[in-house]
Amino acid sequence: MDKTIQEGWKTVRFNGSTPKVENETIAIEYPMTVMINGEEFATMVCTPTDVRDLVIGFLASEGMIRFFDDIKSIQIDEEQGFAHIELYKSLDDYEHDHSKRFIGSCCGKSRQFYFKSDVQTARTVTTKLTVTADDCHKAMEELQSSSDHFQKTGGVHNAALWIDGELVVIRTDIGRHNALDKIYGHVVENNIRLTDALIVFSGRMSSEVILKISKMGIGIIVSKSAPTDLALKLADDLGITAIGFVRKNKMNVYTHPFRIKEATNISLE
Amino acid sequence: MDKTIQEGWKTVRFNGSTPKVENETIAIEYPMTVMINGEEFATMVCTPTDVRDLVIGFLASEGMIRFFDDIKSIQIDEEQGFAHIELYKSLDDYEHDHSKRFIGSCCGKSRQFYFKSDVQTARTVTTKLTVTADDCHKAMEELQSSSDHFQKTGGVHNAALWIDGELVVIRTDIGRHNALDKIYGHVVENNIRLTDALIVFSGRMSSEVILKISKMGIGIIVSKSAPTDLALKLADDLGITAIGFVRKNKMNVYTHPFRIKEATNISLE
Repeated sequence: MDKTIQEGWKTVRFNGSTPKVENETIAIEYPMTVMINGEEFATMVCTPTDVRDLVIGFLASEGMIRFFDDIKSIQIDEEQGFAHIELYKSLDDYEHDHSKRFIGSCCGKSRQFYFKSDVQTARTVTTKLTVTADDCHKAMEELQSSSDHFQKTGGVHNAALWIDGELVVIRTDIGRHNALDKIYGHVVENNIRLTDALIVFSGRMSSEVILKISKMGIGIIVSKSAPTDLALKLADDLGITAIGFVRKNKMNVYTHPFRIKEATNISLE
Repeated sequence: MDKTIQEGWKTVRFNGSTPKVENETIAIEYPMTVMINGEEFATMVCTPTDVRDLVIGFLASEGMIRFFDDIKSIQIDEEQGFAHIELYKSLDDYEHDHSKRFIGSCCGKSRQFYFKSDVQTARTVTTKLTVTADDCHKAMEELQSSSDHFQKTGGVHNAALWIDGELVVIRTDIGRHNALDKIYGHVVENNIRLTDALIVFSGRMSSEVILKISKMGIGIIVSKSAPTDLALKLADDLGITAIGFVRKNKMNVYTHPFRIKEATNISLE
């Protein structure tokens, strides 16, 4: 059974002013509540695939864990939509910093973080990986052809890890951030080295997307969509090469073009 | 000064493998922290326009206020990105229900809510408004032509209130939900009657979108994009006509087609 879509939703399709009843295929949206050490921590809506990856990636993104070994136990109740997590640390140890707004400006160049926990977990990426423009386009084409759900429902985002010319992990979700967290969770649990990886992504590059990439230690993001200014300031500051609008043989490299072979000598300073 | 975009971001544009440095226009993303009665309540990232509307709509969506008069004072510090809200009620009065996951199934038909606070604020919409397929297309065309930022940056969502053949309020944000909250805030502060209103929306219809529409008491949503199954179950249950993929003379009516004049006799039961 495909958990990403529901088939057979009766729909009135209009062509001009002519209605006709047909069955449509719709993306599934599913609420998932994360309980940590018995306390309700967060509820997210997601596509109910790779839920374990999602939960682990979410914990890592939120700075609740750094390694898989920080988790004592993890139990997913898919039917009710609950993830029961036991961490070795007490929740009180996180409370002080978690999701506290942080206004930072120091050392001359201000880091555009807005959560205090991100200051501790986001790090400057120093990967030496370089790729060609053609690599970026091929990775995007492969992402689109391997994920046919978008064609079916128009409602999901895809993210993939590209290493050595291949997509090694592909994840899908109705939420942009969830698709990335599913990748992150898989990486954390399987201890995958990401110094030679890039992320291919169907969604927009917001600040949160760039922060996740940086926490994973990935140096290049290739997106089909647009970036925001805050995302680009973060990417610039964290040493990430942010590439957007990768469509039809064109693309925009917004930060650190030195990782693109044809642009190694171009400076954007 | 246009607060939605930043011009002049130096970018390497690739056409095939040929790089060229050009200036790009990027959507602005701005963190805004909502303080209620002196306590940090939430931080959202947004487009810094109509910030007062956003904050009021957010409070209404979250069930913190029902009427504008529930707010004692509101002060926006745009420079630092803080909204300082004083409510007459104490925060403790909300704590019990706010964002607590709720598993509901009663009265035969289960309501697909997932937050307890939504059970109290989402309501069945009973508007008698009917429109033609042509109205829906015209409203969408007007939304797209009035909001030219999407063309400039590819990074924002638009929502508008359509009443009596006209778009009366249009709001823009990098976040889908924020664009709707900006509409909601304007409606709450100005006490606008919405029984004859429809919402035109550039974004996807998720459960959260439908819940917001229902809290506003709006009976029709016209979206350029896809719905999720949870959104459609909610729309079905709450009496909302959900219309998606409104593009090029075509559209899909997923729930309650009786409000579309050409489909009043069609049942989807």
